[in-house]
Amino acid sequence: MNTLTVALGDRSYPIHIGSRILADQQLLIPHIKGNQVLIVTNETVAPLYLEKAQSALGNFETETVILPDGEKYKTLEITRRIFTHLLEKHFNRTATLIALGGGVVGDITGFAAACYQRGVNFIQIPTTLLAQVDSSVGGKTGVNHPLGKNMIGAFHQPQCVITDIDTLNTLDNRQLNAGIAEIIKYGLIRDYEFFEWLEDNIEKLIQRDKDALIYAINRSCMNKAEVVAADEKESGQRALLNLGHTFGHAIETGTGYGTWLHGEAIASGMLMAADLSARHGWLSSHELARIKSILLRASLPTGTPAELSAQQFLDLMSVDKKVLAGKLRFVLLKAIGKSFVTEEFEQSHLEELLNETPGINSADLKIRND
Amino acid sequence: MNTLTVALGDRSYPIHIGSRILADQQLLIPHIKGNQVLIVTNETVAPLYLEKAQSALGNFETETVILPDGEKYKTLEITRRIFTHLLEKHFNRTATLIALGGGVVGDITGFAAACYQRGVNFIQIPTTLLAQVDSSVGGKTGVNHPLGKNMIGAFHQPQCVITDIDTLNTLDNRQLNAGIAEIIKYGLIRDYEFFEWLEDNIEKLIQRDKDALIYAINRSCMNKAEVVAADEKESGQRALLNLGHTFGHAIETGTGYGTWLHGEAIASGMLMAADLSARHGWLSSHELARIKSILLRASLPTGTPAELSAQQFLDLMSVDKKVLAGKLRFVLLKAIGKSFVTEEFEQSHLEELLNETPGINSADLKIRND
Repeated sequence: MNTLTVALGDRSYPIHIGSRILADQQLLIPHIKGNQVLIVTNETVAPLYLEKAQSALGNFETETVILPDGEKYKTLEITRRIFTHLLEKHFNRTATLIALGGGVVGDITGFAAACYQRGVNFIQIPTTLLAQVDSSVGGKTGVNHPLGKNMIGAFHQPQCVITDIDTLNTLDNRQLNAGIAEIIKYGLIRDYEFFEWLEDNIEKLIQRDKDALIYAINRSCMNKAEVVAADEKESGQRALLNLGHTFGHAIETGTGYGTWLHGEAIASGMLMAADLSARHGWLSSHELARIKSILLRASLPTGTPAELSAQQFLDLMSVDKKVLAGKLRFVLLKAIGKSFVTEEFEQSHLEELLNETPGINSADLKIRND
Repeated sequence: MNTLTVALGDRSYPIHIGSRILADQQLLIPHIKGNQVLIVTNETVAPLYLEKAQSALGNFETETVILPDGEKYKTLEITRRIFTHLLEKHFNRTATLIALGGGVVGDITGFAAACYQRGVNFIQIPTTLLAQVDSSVGGKTGVNHPLGKNMIGAFHQPQCVITDIDTLNTLDNRQLNAGIAEIIKYGLIRDYEFFEWLEDNIEKLIQRDKDALIYAINRSCMNKAEVVAADEKESGQRALLNLGHTFGHAIETGTGYGTWLHGEAIASGMLMAADLSARHGWLSSHELARIKSILLRASLPTGTPAELSAQQFLDLMSVDKKVLAGKLRFVLLKAIGKSFVTEEFEQSHLEELLNETPGINSADLKIRND
């Protein structure tokens, strides 16, 4: 088992990464303050891992909320269900929430924990690759609004993150590949050596080789932990983690949450960011080709939803959180491993990009992973 | 004009208390970061003060949300309306929200600011006495759930508080007296000298004497600012500010939000806490009589809702945030000006108290202030 620390002063916490650690009492119990524990999971994860998680909590007053599965349920209304359950069971300020599931479960549960009685503890047990390398680390919690993704939320750090790679055995290929998109992101924004490692080893990840998965998750979390420790609330370099997200969120909002997986939208968005960088002469065409190639090897989309026009895309991006004072901002690339945030780009290059990126039928996303 | 500071490191902020300062650009504008400002107010306050507030914001992109008036609208659903308005107008992370109104407007607006895009700035312009001496200071924000008051919320400090006592001219007597209840609270929990001042001057407050109001608001805010600076997130002494609140929240929840004003419920709750203290021999009967007397002079209720049985009261209190690990906790009095938090009380004394406190018909609350 590997253990990393997210260094945030009195809010520091460990990330444990290993095999068969989901029900490890020694990892879990030191982080539970009171006697009341609520496990939040979803209808896909519950039959697989709920009993195991509960078995580690024998002596606590344990309740469970099982949410429907999918990004479209990451709403204020669903969060309200969690509040209602907590209140019906008289859960108090010493309660601990456990998020057992993917990014949606983690984001909602973290947000519920941030707001319940103005803040209670929570623990992340991510069961998808995407959640393990991204959303479970760093304290960003929240829900979507019909007008924009993650628009309602809070910074609320977990007490610990327990990443059991065995949970990836039950993940379908499409979800696994969506997680690989976020792993590639770390290589692109700040870790060229890791990108090279991925070029050499991506098939091992796709084949779920345990050692390769542990290495890639650990290195991804190290990158994320460093960024978060330096800039918890995204006033500076943390914004680099949003590579591909301005495009990606537009895709997710424009196609309806859940049609494209988050990682798929981010893959497409990262390639668009790379392409926009290349159109400005900031990134070489060779590097752009390497990025496209690795995404294709992971069966990730390299086009945009056919149903979204360039104008719709622009409109959707204009409500993104990263739009400051009415100006679009992008994370772009100077090289693989070197990213920067800018508002200074040519509108004509952006429009050409949106017009020239090939369209993908959203229904094909599922097929390509079969 | 008096200016106090709530000392919270890089989250410190000023409280300005004075006459004709509502539209003072020099107080307001330094605290607005970007160009987008949303004023949140309600249908009672808007016709009185909205135009004045807008006049101070001539050069900003200013939007307004006007909420229905009343505690029963302090909900997640109403907060969602604010998010929708912000998103429709493409408000970004540099936006500033201004709460123009009483405690309900302040609590909702602060919570919306805490959650919108994971946190934007907000400014409090409290227009009721209760909000001026209590809820606008200290960063507690939130909304009610049908199962409990303030159960969903966040700690989110404002950028500044602008308290214009001229807004009290339009406040009805009942609202004014409800605010006086919270002023009396500071005397009871930690400021005996202030309690004595109130015994000498309460009629001046009721008659809205400007100097008396400024003195009482300033002294109340000084007390609150000291407590909040020492214990922002209520891990210790901040709990003393909850004198009367365990009883009071039960009254508010049990009678339906808004039937009793918050200050009325707190007045009743403070007297119950004092009575419970006296039943344990911790407070003298003479001091109990002084407390009852000053509440009566401010036309505040000294009984409980006739419709709530002792058992209903106990059930309602058991969901209060201040119930730790299933145990009821009360703020009680050792003397006027000396309070403490305890779980160690005699259940028989509590039950006697609940059975023996006289019942009040909620409909009479309005009449007594006419």
